[in-house]
Amino acid sequence: MNNVDWKLLKEIADLEKTPMGAYNIRKNGRLDGRSNTAHIVIDTKTDKSGIDIHIAPGTKNESVHIPVIITETGLNDLVYNDFYVGADCDVDIIAGCGIHNSGCETSQHDGVHTFHVGKNAKVRYVEKHYGEGEGTGERIMNPQTIVYLEEGASIHMETTQIRGIDSTKRYTKIVVGAGGEGVITEKLLTHGRQTAESEMDIVLAGEDASGRVISRSVAQDESRQVFYPRMIGEARCFGHVQCDSILMGNAKIKSIPAIAAESPDAQLIHEAAIGRIAGDQILKLMTLGLTEEEAEEKILDGFLQ
Amino acid sequence: MNNVDWKLLKEIADLEKTPMGAYNIRKNGRLDGRSNTAHIVIDTKTDKSGIDIHIAPGTKNESVHIPVIITETGLNDLVYNDFYVGADCDVDIIAGCGIHNSGCETSQHDGVHTFHVGKNAKVRYVEKHYGEGEGTGERIMNPQTIVYLEEGASIHMETTQIRGIDSTKRYTKIVVGAGGEGVITEKLLTHGRQTAESEMDIVLAGEDASGRVISRSVAQDESRQVFYPRMIGEARCFGHVQCDSILMGNAKIKSIPAIAAESPDAQLIHEAAIGRIAGDQILKLMTLGLTEEEAEEKILDGFLQ
Repeated sequence: MNNVDWKLLKEIADLEKTPMGAYNIRKNGRLDGRSNTAHIVIDTKTDKSGIDIHIAPGTKNESVHIPVIITETGLNDLVYNDFYVGADCDVDIIAGCGIHNSGCETSQHDGVHTFHVGKNAKVRYVEKHYGEGEGTGERIMNPQTIVYLEEGASIHMETTQIRGIDSTKRYTKIVVGAGGEGVITEKLLTHGRQTAESEMDIVLAGEDASGRVISRSVAQDESRQVFYPRMIGEARCFGHVQCDSILMGNAKIKSIPAIAAESPDAQLIHEAAIGRIAGDQILKLMTLGLTEEEAEEKILDGFLQ
Repeated sequence: MNNVDWKLLKEIADLEKTPMGAYNIRKNGRLDGRSNTAHIVIDTKTDKSGIDIHIAPGTKNESVHIPVIITETGLNDLVYNDFYVGADCDVDIIAGCGIHNSGCETSQHDGVHTFHVGKNAKVRYVEKHYGEGEGTGERIMNPQTIVYLEEGASIHMETTQIRGIDSTKRYTKIVVGAGGEGVITEKLLTHGRQTAESEMDIVLAGEDASGRVISRSVAQDESRQVFYPRMIGEARCFGHVQCDSILMGNAKIKSIPAIAAESPDAQLIHEAAIGRIAGDQILKLMTLGLTEEEAEEKILDGFLQ
């Protein structure tokens, strides 16, 4: 682990030293460090690249860190991580990927994460994507997250891509069982000529399932974003999708949501707004002594924090 | 014109006698009556079925009625109507189609309406679709409406399908020029095994164009509805799409909108909600002495009026 590695780990997982609890650090497509606990066991997959994470039923107040860092240019890393979270757990899972590309070839990480969350278990899943490096090589990340929630289980997923990813295609699917809850908070900022596409399927499959998507995005410069959040109500359920996007420069944003009531007892709401920062918001901050740029930055910080 | 004809005309165009001003009444695929005015001239198309309606520039406070009624079972009527509305007009256009099907064969009307609305002209366009008849034959209507608004021009389109249409596929497109305004208010009620699909493209093409879609629908029994309202901002513009749907019985509703900011100065908002009538709304009306059915009816009336 060198300085570049630690900088990436700090950005994506807020780590300044080896984490407490269970962890698995992957660097340039290879295992760099692993720790298990009494309740959390991480195994290397034997049939393909990736790991299985088994969390024993009833495990509470424990965390798993599984950051991935890439510092080689031209590396294409595809990994499958499967999480088996036992009943009645209450755990934090911190994933994330950082790419430092100082070369001229594309560095790419595609992570396919599948969660099987047992009865009444609670998972908080945090995932950050970050890219940097003075090279001309592209930094690409295509995360796929599939979640199955059993009765009464919940996941709160916080996903953030703030800077440096040239191209991303994100796919998230959550199937919510009876009385379960799936919440996704997505924050996305693109700049330069970056492109981002985010597709989601939230299936409210069981009675009294609930789902919520809060998506906040900023598109700067010449960047492009497309969103496809879909919420399907198959039972008595409540679902809410809320997407807010800020346009800057010559950016373009499209939002193509879908809400589908397959059950007459489904209640579904969708809201989306796309637009520039209101001029009077900027003016107000400028009268307090900020420059126009500082005012804009202040507003974006508040919007994405 | 017999009693059945007049009942249909009353339902779709609120007519109890031959209308004032310009009109063209089509019955069972044939012209049944026409009147021009000094400013409004209706011509039969020579290349295909339908009419051309020319409204002279500056025509104000005049109306055109162009109702279509079908009382023959097994009739399939396809018509193309083109409207040329001159600059600075302020006119009402009342279309609509009523089908009385007492036979066992399908009766169908497909109307393709195209509007060319000149500079600063204002059009109010009202369109009602209604079906009845004791026959087992289906009643089908597939209206298509294409509108081109020049600079400063506006259209307020009110479209209603309240009962009796077994299957409908609606398509509406409005291209809004600089400073123009396109407003669509759509009301739709389906029951039994009816299906309804409504697709819209609102293109905000010119600077300071604005667009608004207000869609209210009720799906009862085993009926199915799908909505595809799309709003595209190609310039500095403001667009708002608002869809509210009430589910009853075993009905299903899907809403798949799209908002696309192709210009960084576009401001677009979408809201959609699907759900049953809130139980406490019904309870409140029941404590005022209404039965449950009366309470439900009262709420639907308010929602769709």
